[in-house]
Amino acid sequence: MSGSTVRVGVLGCGNVGAALVRLVRQQGDAIEARTGLRLEVARVAVRHTAKKRDVDLPPELFTHDPGEVVADPSVEVVVEMIGGIEPARTLILDALKAGKPVVTANKELLANVGGELFTTADAAGVDLLFEAAVGGGIPLIRPLRESLAGERIRRVIGIVNGTTNYILTRMSEDGASYHDALAEAQSLGYAERDPTADVEGYDAGAKAAIIATVAFGSQVVAGDVYHEGISGVTTADIDYAHRLGYEVKLLAVAEQADDGAVAVRVHPAMVPRSHPLATVRDSFNAVFIEGDAVGELMLYGRGAGGAPSASAVLGDLIDAARNLRRGFHAGFGPVDRARIRPIDELRSEYYLNMEVVDRPGVLHAVSGVFADHGVSIRSMEQEGLGDEARLVFITHTATEANVQATLQDLRELDVVHRVCSVLRVIGEE
Amino acid sequence: MSGSTVRVGVLGCGNVGAALVRLVRQQGDAIEARTGLRLEVARVAVRHTAKKRDVDLPPELFTHDPGEVVADPSVEVVVEMIGGIEPARTLILDALKAGKPVVTANKELLANVGGELFTTADAAGVDLLFEAAVGGGIPLIRPLRESLAGERIRRVIGIVNGTTNYILTRMSEDGASYHDALAEAQSLGYAERDPTADVEGYDAGAKAAIIATVAFGSQVVAGDVYHEGISGVTTADIDYAHRLGYEVKLLAVAEQADDGAVAVRVHPAMVPRSHPLATVRDSFNAVFIEGDAVGELMLYGRGAGGAPSASAVLGDLIDAARNLRRGFHAGFGPVDRARIRPIDELRSEYYLNMEVVDRPGVLHAVSGVFADHGVSIRSMEQEGLGDEARLVFITHTATEANVQATLQDLRELDVVHRVCSVLRVIGEE
Repeated sequence: MSGSTVRVGVLGCGNVGAALVRLVRQQGDAIEARTGLRLEVARVAVRHTAKKRDVDLPPELFTHDPGEVVADPSVEVVVEMIGGIEPARTLILDALKAGKPVVTANKELLANVGGELFTTADAAGVDLLFEAAVGGGIPLIRPLRESLAGERIRRVIGIVNGTTNYILTRMSEDGASYHDALAEAQSLGYAERDPTADVEGYDAGAKAAIIATVAFGSQVVAGDVYHEGISGVTTADIDYAHRLGYEVKLLAVAEQADDGAVAVRVHPAMVPRSHPLATVRDSFNAVFIEGDAVGELMLYGRGAGGAPSASAVLGDLIDAARNLRRGFHAGFGPVDRARIRPIDELRSEYYLNMEVVDRPGVLHAVSGVFADHGVSIRSMEQEGLGDEARLVFITHTATEANVQATLQDLRELDVVHRVCSVLRVIGEE
Repeated sequence: MSGSTVRVGVLGCGNVGAALVRLVRQQGDAIEARTGLRLEVARVAVRHTAKKRDVDLPPELFTHDPGEVVADPSVEVVVEMIGGIEPARTLILDALKAGKPVVTANKELLANVGGELFTTADAAGVDLLFEAAVGGGIPLIRPLRESLAGERIRRVIGIVNGTTNYILTRMSEDGASYHDALAEAQSLGYAERDPTADVEGYDAGAKAAIIATVAFGSQVVAGDVYHEGISGVTTADIDYAHRLGYEVKLLAVAEQADDGAVAVRVHPAMVPRSHPLATVRDSFNAVFIEGDAVGELMLYGRGAGGAPSASAVLGDLIDAARNLRRGFHAGFGPVDRARIRPIDELRSEYYLNMEVVDRPGVLHAVSGVFADHGVSIRSMEQEGLGDEARLVFITHTATEANVQATLQDLRELDVVHRVCSVLRVIGEE
């Protein structure tokens, strides 16, 4: 434990972990020149110590016991890249209590028990940094915590799941069906064999909870996030979106109202083509921030992948090491639970696509249901489908509760065969 | 000087200064809740103390003597928003030497005597922060210094001047001439009556020097930056750009070669429409970063204006106040002068637009000049203009020296009446 060498314990050596170990080696001299600190990967915990890895470390540094790495008195900083809740949670708590700063990319853990971790880190007076947990290599957490520390942030809208953005890009640009685009994403390794966590919005939901916690300074957990996935988005929806001047994107939206209540949701939405988020293609991520003074910001980049995430972890690691040597820690401030505004109170414009009987008077019946619930129609298109017709509506701003009540009544109407899709529309504000 | 109140001296109370004073007041409670620190604007130096200002401060806080603010023993942090070299330089040096951290948005100062300021700040062990100097409210300096501290940055390409981006957007979207677009920008207050600093690339050049200094950790000054402005860009160039799939943007480009040499330049360029920078419209700014591990990042937002810049200044101010209380400073590390690579060694694709005699054999003569200098042509278009013809070339990658030699010979060719434009092309990499 020399003054200038900081010994790092790494838990997990998968894609990101291995990239981190390589990056620490490649950039070691440059980091030392800039900061006076030499980072040394001292211990690495892996599931299978015998497995061949593309990292240039002596075999004796590897152990299958992550607890041993955390407890090693020569390890000063811990990088957790195991993922999941346990044993990651216990390992991180043990490290923090032992006065060791922790860098993690574990979104699931932060979105579920982040409060416990932040409190423990603050009590121990050490850093808990997690830039790579959201948006991979994109600097997001640090700008939100530091650069925008004096900003009243109103809303953050993110494209934070690369898999679903890739699928939606293929549907939009190649006219692929959802299933073909998903299969392509799977064959390229962008989507898992079981794609549920991505396509149903769970991954984006965890990230939205973390974004909201950092942006608004009060704790939001994964269970607070309303979510809908993209598996119901059809090529017809994409076609209508294009015709109306939109792209369909899976958005994570975190908002704070004037009364302090926080609303966090994940759902596919229509984004105007002129909006910067509409231009985010393929597996790229971006986060759009709306603040009172700063106006509109967007941070864009590679949201996943070993090297980009390792770059973010390394930025945190340098910060943690520097702070440790100076007996300083970033601190998270108060982490009360946020007051959550239910989705029913959401105010938005909506796109609705439904199949109806093709005969006179149908539009009159359908539009009457909208009127009954005070939902005002901004535009309507009707398209013949043989015996049926398709009606596509864009509403003016309405509350979610009123739109849901409208939908319930529409489904009970004889002339409505099927409500195919309901998508929220991001305004042109 | 209570433990939790930090007294701030503000030098200059123009657009950004007044916005800062208001923001400190509005966000004071939120900042205290988050950081435990109460920021108090203690003294404000202005040119005319009698002038009416939209800030809610007692008149006795104002003085016309900025030196008095810096010397006031109760002032702990200094915000410099006077601009220009002197007296800003002396005031900042005095503050730093007195152990007072300084926040500044003064790009001219940083791009000319930044090295002296950084060295003085490091020697005094206090912060010198300058997020608002480049890109207004966009978090850029902090991400470059901290989030990307472990990253080998190859290239940074910025749209960092809102005035010229506004002019080029009007030319691109409305078909306006350069002069009409400039007049519109002036009438909207986006451009000065004397627009030279913006349209000839001096403002972008100063920002490019600061970006290069931070990104590559070695000092680049304004005089190191090669620059060309946009006053020569014509509607014909924009039309050709569109036809070939490009937008014309004024870019600030900072690159570091493998041997450590740094090249920094500002010039209008053709940007492929699929590139994220091509979608940056109106007076917005964006900075595109290419790193070895992180891949491609873009940071986008309001590059100017009182409120966005004040938001960035306030982020720095909170940081400086927090660090001051903890006896800590961010430090800039070594600031050797960068080795500058001359523009002659630039390798790029080029767009060339020239008017020639319209007769057989002209293309043969012209293309022979390209061949003589080893400049390979990727595409050519010929358009009749009555007695003349217009030739438009896009080259393959060539060196600046060879292209300049080609241009010199072309201008001496009888059949070439005029070389109208030469624009560098950002590759589709």
